[in-house]
Amino acid sequence: MSAMNKQILLKSRPVGEPTADNFQLVETPAPTPGPGQFRVKVIYMSLDPYMRGRMGAEKSYAANAELGQVMVGGGVGVVEDSNNDQFKTGDYVMCGTGWQSYCLSDGTGVMKLNPDQAPISTGVGVLGMPGLTAYYGLLEIGKPQAGETVVVAAASGAVGSVVGQIARIKGCRAIGIAGSAEKCAFVVDELGFDACLNYKDADFKEKLAAACPDGIDVYFENVGGKVFEAVLPLLNDDSRMPVCGLISQYNMTDLPQGTNMLPALMRSVLTHRILIQGFIISYHFHHLPAFLKDVSGWIREGKLKYREDIVEGIEKAPEAFMGLLKGKNFGKLLVRVSDDPTRK
Amino acid sequence: MSAMNKQILLKSRPVGEPTADNFQLVETPAPTPGPGQFRVKVIYMSLDPYMRGRMGAEKSYAANAELGQVMVGGGVGVVEDSNNDQFKTGDYVMCGTGWQSYCLSDGTGVMKLNPDQAPISTGVGVLGMPGLTAYYGLLEIGKPQAGETVVVAAASGAVGSVVGQIARIKGCRAIGIAGSAEKCAFVVDELGFDACLNYKDADFKEKLAAACPDGIDVYFENVGGKVFEAVLPLLNDDSRMPVCGLISQYNMTDLPQGTNMLPALMRSVLTHRILIQGFIISYHFHHLPAFLKDVSGWIREGKLKYREDIVEGIEKAPEAFMGLLKGKNFGKLLVRVSDDPTRK
Repeated sequence: MSAMNKQILLKSRPVGEPTADNFQLVETPAPTPGPGQFRVKVIYMSLDPYMRGRMGAEKSYAANAELGQVMVGGGVGVVEDSNNDQFKTGDYVMCGTGWQSYCLSDGTGVMKLNPDQAPISTGVGVLGMPGLTAYYGLLEIGKPQAGETVVVAAASGAVGSVVGQIARIKGCRAIGIAGSAEKCAFVVDELGFDACLNYKDADFKEKLAAACPDGIDVYFENVGGKVFEAVLPLLNDDSRMPVCGLISQYNMTDLPQGTNMLPALMRSVLTHRILIQGFIISYHFHHLPAFLKDVSGWIREGKLKYREDIVEGIEKAPEAFMGLLKGKNFGKLLVRVSDDPTRK
Repeated sequence: MSAMNKQILLKSRPVGEPTADNFQLVETPAPTPGPGQFRVKVIYMSLDPYMRGRMGAEKSYAANAELGQVMVGGGVGVVEDSNNDQFKTGDYVMCGTGWQSYCLSDGTGVMKLNPDQAPISTGVGVLGMPGLTAYYGLLEIGKPQAGETVVVAAASGAVGSVVGQIARIKGCRAIGIAGSAEKCAFVVDELGFDACLNYKDADFKEKLAAACPDGIDVYFENVGGKVFEAVLPLLNDDSRMPVCGLISQYNMTDLPQGTNMLPALMRSVLTHRILIQGFIISYHFHHLPAFLKDVSGWIREGKLKYREDIVEGIEKAPEAFMGLLKGKNFGKLLVRVSDDPTRK
């Protein structure tokens, strides 16, 4: 085996925004599978906001990445060399690949993908963890009822785009929030949301209020910060707030100074009987079968669309990840690590 | 009918702490019941923190009191003169009496009390709204499991004392927080909590952490402010936080300046998958039968105790209410408006 494995290691832990210096690209010989193992040639690597938490030393909701080790993460690839009866050469799989071009696996936590049913890239997108996060959080915690107003930020992204489209399918008004006029137009014109506001507009708060004349019944929280502060006064009695992410906070080094908004939040929680619930999708994998059935059905029926933002080459992963935290991506962010033989 | 009705009116809306000037005592002839009505001679009037919200002009979770009208509130009394078949002279009842010595009712929302089963004063205390608030919030939102740690502030008060004792009955560790050494001793020695901390102690935060070596699984929130900020770092994965009150905030006129704790709260919610849910007990009266059965049973068995702090004379109500917001009461705060013929 003469192929080389390009790996991106966590060289140092970022303070605030990650920089190129926090990562290190190394090349080592591609690994050889031991007994019961197989090698995966990575095709797409997923970049997701949660990875920022794993780069830190503080406790977050997922285990930290280790200094000097390959950055953690998921991807899809093809089995090349297998000593495992369950996985054969040529099988397409989704697994925890890490940021590298080859990985070994013993099959634990590996999901097979059928390229005839859906593009394999969706295994880390609309039919993978981001899609399941949207599906579970919206339906199980948000419990949207027909006629209600559902608001979601990062509305053109991997999770938000699915949240709003499922809200529409369930008969709700779906209001998106995104970071550019182009993204907002896509969210309304392509994804079918009822409206989408640009949080960078000076009058964003007023526009959001105008787009939600009956208030907000479900706010799917994946951003935090100023977007949440604009949402808070609009939350209705008995509203629900699944909390799946806080991307605006991930690079925060110190708590901000100024007005303490905590008493305002708690007053709203009490006065309006609001439910706020954090969740980590890893604890809800038993919803996978229902999710795959529903969402793949909706995709086939043309009711649910998705957009991918594909960066070419693993070398670009650190830069693309830094851009993700600033909202520079447009759609589910993927890194193409090697050619996708299934894509025509 | 020559008796005079002493009434306390809301004269002006407080800014910050209520003062004596916000109230006005007037005397009018006791009212005469019309068709279908009956007159109640008030015996005990309840004073509760939620009344501060009703004094303001801002939207709160209950309707505001009207300027120049009798302050709203509940009490227990005896039927004196009735044109209603369902309620006879001599019946003891709990109803929305307002801050006055006589009121009229058509029976709507009135609950009969049996003085042979429990002291009538408990109809606005441990067997009334405060008790139901504790019972519903802890069991339905907090969902305590045997072996878990439950923390409640205002632990010697009408709600907190019941929360901790039910937690003990359900096999949990109950940790109270109160505002004096005397109250803390009562909470541990009389009510049987596992520990109780004085939030006025300089090292309160450290003592709370030491009293919760396995973290906090349920925090029953009725206080807010610095107590909550001490609780927040101790909340466990999957912990639950019923929010029934925020007494430390009720006199707040402006949001505090300094560190914005909202991002810290949201980070904890996400990282530890915390559930926060506000509730108003008025929406959950269908739990009354189960509550009355359970709690009156626990009282009879000696498993659940209560303490009353009774102020004599309706004239004292404003001062007692102002003291309540500062934690000056010790136990469920009541005003004795007239003699209790059932109390030996």
